[in-house]
Amino acid sequence: MAAAPVWSVDPRTGKRREQVAVEATAAEVEAAVRAAHDARGALADRRVRAALLRRAADLLDGAGERIVEAADAESALGPGRLTGELSRTTYQLRAFADVVEEGAFLDVLIDHADPGLTPPRPDLRRYKIPLGVVAVYAASNFPLAFSVPGGDTASALAAGCPVVVKAHPDHPATSELSAALLRRAANEVGLPSGVIGLVHGFEAGVELVRHPLVAAAGFTGSVRGGRALYDAAAARPHPIPFHGELGSLNPVVVTEAAADERAEQIGTGLAGSMTLGTGQFCVKPGLVLAPRGPAGDRLERSLTEAVSNTEAGVLLDHRMRDAFLDGVRERAALPDVQAPVTPGAGGEHTVSAGFLTVPAARLAEDGGTHDLLLEECFGPVTVLARYTDDAEIGAVLARLPGNLTATLQLGAAECAGGDAGTGASGGGTGTVAATGGTGRGARLLAALTPLAGRVLVNGWPTGVAVAPAQHHGGPYPATTSTATSVGGTAVERWLRPVAYQDTPPALLPPELREDNPLNLPRRVDGRPER
Amino acid sequence: MAAAPVWSVDPRTGKRREQVAVEATAAEVEAAVRAAHDARGALADRRVRAALLRRAADLLDGAGERIVEAADAESALGPGRLTGELSRTTYQLRAFADVVEEGAFLDVLIDHADPGLTPPRPDLRRYKIPLGVVAVYAASNFPLAFSVPGGDTASALAAGCPVVVKAHPDHPATSELSAALLRRAANEVGLPSGVIGLVHGFEAGVELVRHPLVAAAGFTGSVRGGRALYDAAAARPHPIPFHGELGSLNPVVVTEAAADERAEQIGTGLAGSMTLGTGQFCVKPGLVLAPRGPAGDRLERSLTEAVSNTEAGVLLDHRMRDAFLDGVRERAALPDVQAPVTPGAGGEHTVSAGFLTVPAARLAEDGGTHDLLLEECFGPVTVLARYTDDAEIGAVLARLPGNLTATLQLGAAECAGGDAGTGASGGGTGTVAATGGTGRGARLLAALTPLAGRVLVNGWPTGVAVAPAQHHGGPYPATTSTATSVGGTAVERWLRPVAYQDTPPALLPPELREDNPLNLPRRVDGRPER
Repeated sequence: MAAAPVWSVDPRTGKRREQVAVEATAAEVEAAVRAAHDARGALADRRVRAALLRRAADLLDGAGERIVEAADAESALGPGRLTGELSRTTYQLRAFADVVEEGAFLDVLIDHADPGLTPPRPDLRRYKIPLGVVAVYAASNFPLAFSVPGGDTASALAAGCPVVVKAHPDHPATSELSAALLRRAANEVGLPSGVIGLVHGFEAGVELVRHPLVAAAGFTGSVRGGRALYDAAAARPHPIPFHGELGSLNPVVVTEAAADERAEQIGTGLAGSMTLGTGQFCVKPGLVLAPRGPAGDRLERSLTEAVSNTEAGVLLDHRMRDAFLDGVRERAALPDVQAPVTPGAGGEHTVSAGFLTVPAARLAEDGGTHDLLLEECFGPVTVLARYTDDAEIGAVLARLPGNLTATLQLGAAECAGGDAGTGASGGGTGTVAATGGTGRGARLLAALTPLAGRVLVNGWPTGVAVAPAQHHGGPYPATTSTATSVGGTAVERWLRPVAYQDTPPALLPPELREDNPLNLPRRVDGRPER
Repeated sequence: MAAAPVWSVDPRTGKRREQVAVEATAAEVEAAVRAAHDARGALADRRVRAALLRRAADLLDGAGERIVEAADAESALGPGRLTGELSRTTYQLRAFADVVEEGAFLDVLIDHADPGLTPPRPDLRRYKIPLGVVAVYAASNFPLAFSVPGGDTASALAAGCPVVVKAHPDHPATSELSAALLRRAANEVGLPSGVIGLVHGFEAGVELVRHPLVAAAGFTGSVRGGRALYDAAAARPHPIPFHGELGSLNPVVVTEAAADERAEQIGTGLAGSMTLGTGQFCVKPGLVLAPRGPAGDRLERSLTEAVSNTEAGVLLDHRMRDAFLDGVRERAALPDVQAPVTPGAGGEHTVSAGFLTVPAARLAEDGGTHDLLLEECFGPVTVLARYTDDAEIGAVLARLPGNLTATLQLGAAECAGGDAGTGASGGGTGTVAATGGTGRGARLLAALTPLAGRVLVNGWPTGVAVAPAQHHGGPYPATTSTATSVGGTAVERWLRPVAYQDTPPALLPPELREDNPLNLPRRVDGRPER
């Protein structure tokens, strides 16, 4: 059987550009994983890891024009956005280099022996060590920042784990180019090429998550694909951690006061956020609860105007275009759903943005008649659900699945904590959050917190800052674990603790030595050392 | 259908003592979970959680005699051991109260807005919030420390999560008594009884892990039972974290030098560790690699003598006794396996300790003829595998599954790092550990590290200190996650991060306020604040 070719396709025309590679056979997956496994030892030195991440960033920046051109040709995301994405990607690589060097992520804990306790306590020294080979499943919508040189790869390398990336079929050429640069960076800092593997093909992806030497996986993509891989990871003889980001509706609640004060600003902001990148962000606001009445009407008019003025865009591939058109059609056909601006086919290869409206009460109906509106629809569409009162807000929130983000648009008095009117409660099966004060704003914030990993006030969820305190994750199906895939703590996904008991000083790893030769932050005998 | 009775049984006689309860129906599981879910808000205040944990410890201590008597009557573990276990349990509850009060586990991260960055960075404030209702599956072999008032319950309550415990059938009366005391403690500090639920019955346990309002689970028990529940947790429409401790062989490697210097001490120490609690510890050393030759022979003789002098003991229940006798019989029948002291039936209800020997080479054979010896056998038996050279040690380690612990017995020069002889490598699919120096001791330590969550030198794995730096977990099947179930970091299992973006100060939870009113340790703009 001839190996299946992997084509780079131009989504602006639907035409094949070039054959980039062939799909990996089981033997090729085996070879990539084995090479990565054999490269583990080479990543043990944190200085080398930091050097790799910095050198990779430099090489990617240096090849910026070529990368942006390649990525644009097969994603149609445009040079502006892709230049920004490349900056984000190299910033992220350098940020993880800083994380590696500081070493706080090693979580060093030292308890000295205490023979006076009953029973006597031995000397215990704990830190975190890399899990082993990490499988990374690249996203369609970020050919760089969530693909070969993206956050999963960067954080895994930072942790000391070699990676094998399963390329996304939407950008095989960009994937090959990025992987070649990462491997060159590896070689330049004295690491074997095996620290970065790359495979193409659906079957190869399934092989990868099942491979006995793969120790963990990171995924960004659809609920369907992600759940299938999650299930495969859990069904292994030795299950492995599967950190998947699957899908998110990213609800927004606009209060009456917010609409009163800022209807036009909110409508325009929403239009910008939901159509950004032709609506292909995992944090696109997909459901907006806005009040009935004149203020909400102003918001809707403003949204109508701004969305109408949005240029048609090209989606990442034609399969997605079909799914978007089908998804919109199905949703628009539901009872009481209107389309003030109909999302749909633009030209032969483009789609035009739009939005749907529905009475919020319909979303809360028994029987889930309108549950389809509570599922993510990838592309430039959102649903404006008009509510009558707080009870309706609460009833809708109670039906929502987990999300990456949840957003509040509040009025000035609500932000100041002063408005003590009744607030919605409900939503989520987990947390009860204790936010500040007892006003309406605080109560709404507390109601949204169980639904998401990031909660925003008076902003828009698109734009996920790469920052230490970032959390990009959330209750299922937003993510399959409690971890983040963006920000410094993303490195925690690829580590496990090990404790050494009564180990002779001469044998201890330097990270755990009493004299702290690596100058690591530590907790000693239950307290921070400095 | 009449509810199935739950009996307290005396393992010393096999006779029923009393009917304690009935197995929970699906409706009763629902009621327990619902009550726990409704109690979440009451646990939001960390001061109340600390008070609950301390009050529970006091009440348990106060009822010590009654508890030890109840536990001994249905576990036969003996008043000495159970008094110690109760101290451990109440120490643990108080230790988690300290953890709650310090608040480092909240992992507060604050990044201030930076409008100068491209793109501008928003204000981000992250901390960890409780997941929701935690299901706790109690262990057979620790009626207190890993059961109703044990580490899973204590750490979940510390995290702010109500618990529903599925009692172990071996100690229903102790479970009821403990739960009543925990609930009394809850009521005394103003919490609803629902924060501590208790259900009996196998089916109830399955219902529990499938319940939509259960947000996470902790389990200590067998590979078979744990894996079934893990699979059920992963197969839910919304999968949940399942932190299970399933099984561990706890390998020990004795070097030639160690045997030369301390054969008798090692033989006696091993006998003590493997027969402690009638061999019913999850960290019992179940496989010991000892050298062929005179030093190893001395070790074997010393082990023979010490094990022969060990009194017969009562196992936790008769099913376990049967499994132990079958397991030993099956292992002893393998080719080249000898039994210098035959483990087996003592009296009608007791078992006597023993050990098996096998040439280490047989454990490494292709085809896995002796793989049964690499599986945990619960009860007072261990396997002494005699090796010829380091290659054999490496070959056996390479076949081992994951473990809670791995132990090295080294000679004095090896401990000092001075012996540069060849060391074994191999073992594990994950980590390459970088231990200190290049001597034989360091190389063996590096070879054992991938196999376990705790690595000991010149000690014995039984006795798991409750300490901040403890790690009680390990590669599968030791645990199903990378988390620990003992020590301060066990609380991390029941939390998830949430980040607030650009949230007005008046609405922020006090944990995230700029002025840090709760005096929490924080990282601000990527650095520890103090």
